[in-house]
Amino acid sequence: MKIDPRCAHCLLSRVHYQALLLTDDTETVNAAVVAGLDALHRTYRLGEPSARISTAVHRSAYRAMGDRDPYLEKKVFSRELAVELMPLARSLVGDNISAEGFRRAVVAATIGNTLDFGVEGFDVNEQDFEAEFKRLFSQGLDVDDTDRLIPLLDDVVYITDNSGEVLLDTLVLEQVRGMGGRVTLVVRGAPILNDATLEDVEIHGIEAQVDRVLTTGSNAIGVCLDEAPAELVDAFERASLIISKGMANYETMSEYGYRPIAYLLRTKCQTVADDMGLKMDMLVAKLVE
Amino acid sequence: MKIDPRCAHCLLSRVHYQALLLTDDTETVNAAVVAGLDALHRTYRLGEPSARISTAVHRSAYRAMGDRDPYLEKKVFSRELAVELMPLARSLVGDNISAEGFRRAVVAATIGNTLDFGVEGFDVNEQDFEAEFKRLFSQGLDVDDTDRLIPLLDDVVYITDNSGEVLLDTLVLEQVRGMGGRVTLVVRGAPILNDATLEDVEIHGIEAQVDRVLTTGSNAIGVCLDEAPAELVDAFERASLIISKGMANYETMSEYGYRPIAYLLRTKCQTVADDMGLKMDMLVAKLVE
Repeated sequence: MKIDPRCAHCLLSRVHYQALLLTDDTETVNAAVVAGLDALHRTYRLGEPSARISTAVHRSAYRAMGDRDPYLEKKVFSRELAVELMPLARSLVGDNISAEGFRRAVVAATIGNTLDFGVEGFDVNEQDFEAEFKRLFSQGLDVDDTDRLIPLLDDVVYITDNSGEVLLDTLVLEQVRGMGGRVTLVVRGAPILNDATLEDVEIHGIEAQVDRVLTTGSNAIGVCLDEAPAELVDAFERASLIISKGMANYETMSEYGYRPIAYLLRTKCQTVADDMGLKMDMLVAKLVE
Repeated sequence: MKIDPRCAHCLLSRVHYQALLLTDDTETVNAAVVAGLDALHRTYRLGEPSARISTAVHRSAYRAMGDRDPYLEKKVFSRELAVELMPLARSLVGDNISAEGFRRAVVAATIGNTLDFGVEGFDVNEQDFEAEFKRLFSQGLDVDDTDRLIPLLDDVVYITDNSGEVLLDTLVLEQVRGMGGRVTLVVRGAPILNDATLEDVEIHGIEAQVDRVLTTGSNAIGVCLDEAPAELVDAFERASLIISKGMANYETMSEYGYRPIAYLLRTKCQTVADDMGLKMDMLVAKLVE
């Protein structure tokens, strides 16, 4: 996905938001904004992949904050929320390994993409996420290609998005493995935004539920192939299906042309929605062959 | 008022918003954003007056759009809305020249500061502004120094803010003149945002209701003293009271130290509210002596 003019202010807004998560010291917040502004000014160009610019902006801003992780508390919170949600999600999805079970698991995992912070208008309602989860689950997918995914589940590379969300992803992984498929799980190589890392895999004990865990090799937004380990590039090439969770992974994976690929996400920004030919606030499981 | 880190993304957001008012051509919108980003990067520094930066940003963005006025339609709409509102405003304020009449006129003119566009969360509800006007009028001022203004009305310099709003300002001007005061009305020297210019004075025939009309001498955000005609600087120095409408005028006039000065505005942004020691979304008539 290419950058849109509306991304410029949105990126700076997020830099400011996350600096305030870390500190209320104006000098530090300002240093992050200045660093982000500097990187944005240096890299912003129409036609450029959006994530190349956002990676540069966030890295500069993180550096200005001493590379501390501003989303640490939010991630801890997301994990706890996901753990609390799992009994409900499990009861809605059920235990049956089946086409319907897979679809239900995909719905739950896609709702999990709501466990995000700093996306304007889409902050998690911390008070009542169970009710929201139920509402979204009964509403279901706005784009539902799940039936077409089922024949492609032999060797799945599953690229995760956020902390917390990754626990709901395990419902899908269980279906894939139950159907005899292999799963390579991919998390970020280092903390960026509230994205899942190896820490999340360890905390939830997800390693036992997949065949292999790889990382993106860096703290790039989404997946930066230039920074990815050779094993990951190889896995992408061999996969019977890549499942890409969330917007940042869409932004990057849509640049590389791997097929078939399924995008599971909630459209939380107009630019991503436009690029996918969809509307805002949709639950999406879209296959691109 | 000095810039705050949160102003950076807000300024770029407004540049994008107003470019879309002018055109849906992505290249032009992008050119405006790039020009605004460039100016922001060049001028942004903590401790700098906010309006110096916003003037640079908006001028660059306007230049990139061929110096066309993106708010033209919004201004026409605001003027029509203000004309439609006047009978209601008049009936609420009444005709009596009195302390109470002055206070009511100030309330109406301050609600008029709602006739603004492009301030996040505060766009005019075009459908039902009459009801909103009534609601705000019965709610009244959150900061009310009107009683202390009355002894200061001999020679008033009244700095207007937005198109449309300026018509509601005439209710205050009528009170000032009815009490025997002189009024120098100030509008922008050239189109910027949806601010009132000489065109608004002519359209509404306001010239007959004041003693003198001056302009700020340029399209700067608020009042830039370096670009102001000598007569305006002189008027500021001689005034028994400066009345400054809206946030942009506050941002600039708060830098110069003229006293006494009354700020009439609705607090529509957190930075201005913080700087004034107030909360968001207040109706304010605050005297600084």
